[in-house]
Amino acid sequence: MRNKNNRVHSHDVTQAAYNALIERGVTINDIAEIVYEMQGPYNEQLQLDECIESVEKVLLKREMQHAILVSVELDRLAEQKKLSEPLQSLVETDEGLFGVDETIALGASLGYGSIAVTTFGHLDKNKIGIIEKLDTKRGGAIHTFLDDMVAAIAANASSRLAHRLRDIEENLPKNERRIIEDE
Amino acid sequence: MRNKNNRVHSHDVTQAAYNALIERGVTINDIAEIVYEMQGPYNEQLQLDECIESVEKVLLKREMQHAILVSVELDRLAEQKKLSEPLQSLVETDEGLFGVDETIALGASLGYGSIAVTTFGHLDKNKIGIIEKLDTKRGGAIHTFLDDMVAAIAANASSRLAHRLRDIEENLPKNERRIIEDE
Amino acid sequence: MRNKNNRVHSHDVTQAAYNALIERGVTINDIAEIVYEMQGPYNEQLQLDECIESVEKVLLKREMQHAILVSVELDRLAEQKKLSEPLQSLVETDEGLFGVDETIALGASLGYGSIAVTTFGHLDKNKIGIIEKLDTKRGGAIHTFLDDMVAAIAANASSRLAHRLRDIEENLPKNERRIIEDE
Amino acid sequence: MRNKNNRVHSHDVTQAAYNALIERGVTINDIAEIVYEMQGPYNEQLQLDECIESVEKVLLKREMQHAILVSVELDRLAEQKKLSEPLQSLVETDEGLFGVDETIALGASLGYGSIAVTTFGHLDKNKIGIIEKLDTKRGGAIHTFLDDMVAAIAANASSRLAHRLRDIEENLPKNERRIIEDE
Repeated sequence: MRNKNNRVHSHDVTQAAYNALIERGVTINDIAEIVYEMQGPYNEQLQLDECIESVEKVLLKREMQHAILVSVELDRLAEQKKLSEPLQSLVETDEGLFGVDETIALGASLGYGSIAVTTFGHLDKNKIGIIEKLDTKRGGAIHTFLDDMVAAIAANASSRLAHRLRDIEENLPKNERRIIEDE
Repeated sequence: MRNKNNRVHSHDVTQAAYNALIERGVTINDIAEIVYEMQGPYNEQLQLDECIESVEKVLLKREMQHAILVSVELDRLAEQKKLSEPLQSLVETDEGLFGVDETIALGASLGYGSIAVTTFGHLDKNKIGIIEKLDTKRGGAIHTFLDDMVAAIAANASSRLAHRLRDIEENLPKNERRIIEDE
Repeated sequence: MRNKNNRVHSHDVTQAAYNALIERGVTINDIAEIVYEMQGPYNEQLQLDECIESVEKVLLKREMQHAILVSVELDRLAEQKKLSEPLQSLVETDEGLFGVDETIALGASLGYGSIAVTTFGHLDKNKIGIIEKLDTKRGGAIHTFLDDMVAAIAANASSRLAHRLRDIEENLPKNERRIIEDE
Repeated sequence: MRNKNNRVHSHDVTQAAYNALIERGVTINDIAEIVYEMQGPYNEQLQLDECIESVEKVLLKREMQHAILVSVELDRLAEQKKLSEPLQSLVETDEGLFGVDETIALGASLGYGSIAVTTFGHLDKNKIGIIEKLDTKRGGAIHTFLDDMVAAIAANASSRLAHRLRDIEENLPKNERRIIEDE
């Protein structure tokens, strides 16, 4: 897993973040559907495929990948009752005043500007699509951190699409568009 | 307005922030009503008076007062067409990708923890009460920055009440309660 | 540990956060010394005791306590090699581009305003006092998350003192001073 | 300045942000020199040209351009004594507890991850290069907001280079490198 400098390679981190989502029951498509619902009203020609692509781009960011790895790990450890008390109880019950889950997700969301931040808050309050499913506890499953991360990923992909739409409306050449969008 | 150290006194800043809200048509009561709507579902004994008190406490914070002064000033200057282009147009049209208004408000909101941040995002997207009125342009009035600030004040007062409710439920003595709530 | 509502009581969370710091070798005094170094230049009458008190007040905030519990837990699990790969390697090596540790600490720091944020960045770069000791790996000890949390606590206590000093200079009555400082 | 949709075109905003910096006495080179000083220790082959390019990419982001426009406008209005009291005095004296300048700059900095945030805090405290010059008031010049913005731009360009360096060390193909760096 590590190279000669004893470092984890980006490819391994990217792959691990993808796997972590899938293993926890969240597909790219699930997230893209939230994006579609958020951005559709502003762009009637929006296709689900564009939302999927936007989610994929967001997932290439190192900051997102690291936040996903930590979030999924804490949920998993809580399910296995391996956290120390009182943290175990706080995470297990998704206690209302416990905010480290939102902090990690918001931190990853701030990178996509103000639309990402307000969309994150909205999704976090109004639990849409897969977020709602994750939030509803069933069996022993714990998704205290993951539901916030999914909201952050969807918020970022939404903000990215809003900027992209503007670039297209302004007839920016593809090269320049790419720069404004993604730099 | 300044003392011998050439400094503005806290009292003057507090007063100016209050006046700025009033002059722009926003009362403490307007904001408290949003707080009541946000926190009522979590606390059936909540009274409007407690919401008013919570808004008043939030308005005592220097960070809030400074953010209000800057926000109202920029709206006012835009109404008077005194900003340079292209900033004048960006503020005047409350352009969707312009996010400095949200940045200033969010910065003032982060001080009240994760509930404040998600509530801010929710209010900013769903425009409740006076926020909706401010957002609806009428005459030459411009409230590009103020509507976000009102969302931030209401979000902070809501988060403050959520923490306070917990303290009461836990039967903390008043002195200790105060510390957890406000320190 | 939980009451009849199945909730952890604030007292238990407070105690656990204190214990977590002590067990990881960080005393209130260690943190207060950083605060003294940061604020001394702005206030020549500053006493270490005031710095200690300021750190104690900061540690009463729920957001700080939760952030400490999560940070210490992740460091501990990494020492015990109990995190999944590649997270284990990322935390173990305190990898330079891994930023979740800073995100959690910064999130807890934003509550004390702009002085807290810039002081946090400064401490995080310039490793002062106990932060430097934590950052220097010795034996199998891992403090990837804790050094950032200590920087955040010290930054918050510093910002709190800066506001307090202003209140005293302005001869605010004790009651009002308290409100501006801590609300 | 506006198109038929009554919207300011991206090109105009980009140009205006560049002009604003130049008119206030800040060149791309000035900012690149700070970046060089910050990143040089981590990368001995770093060239000033790469720092210049990194600053230019950061300046293409809409969030940065909007933050620059607002910051420069407020400094200019303060110089012309056109802000209302007490805001005029707060900005004119760059009052220590006034933090809206840091809030706007930090908001623009959060987009480049944790290295950007800690570097911003460090630069803001330690005033390097042109930041120091801006901070030193001379004549009637006021740079209360601009010095923080320059710190944010330099911090972002530094963080961007740190990520880029890693990508090169990992021999990522140019196409993929670009994605991780800039998406």
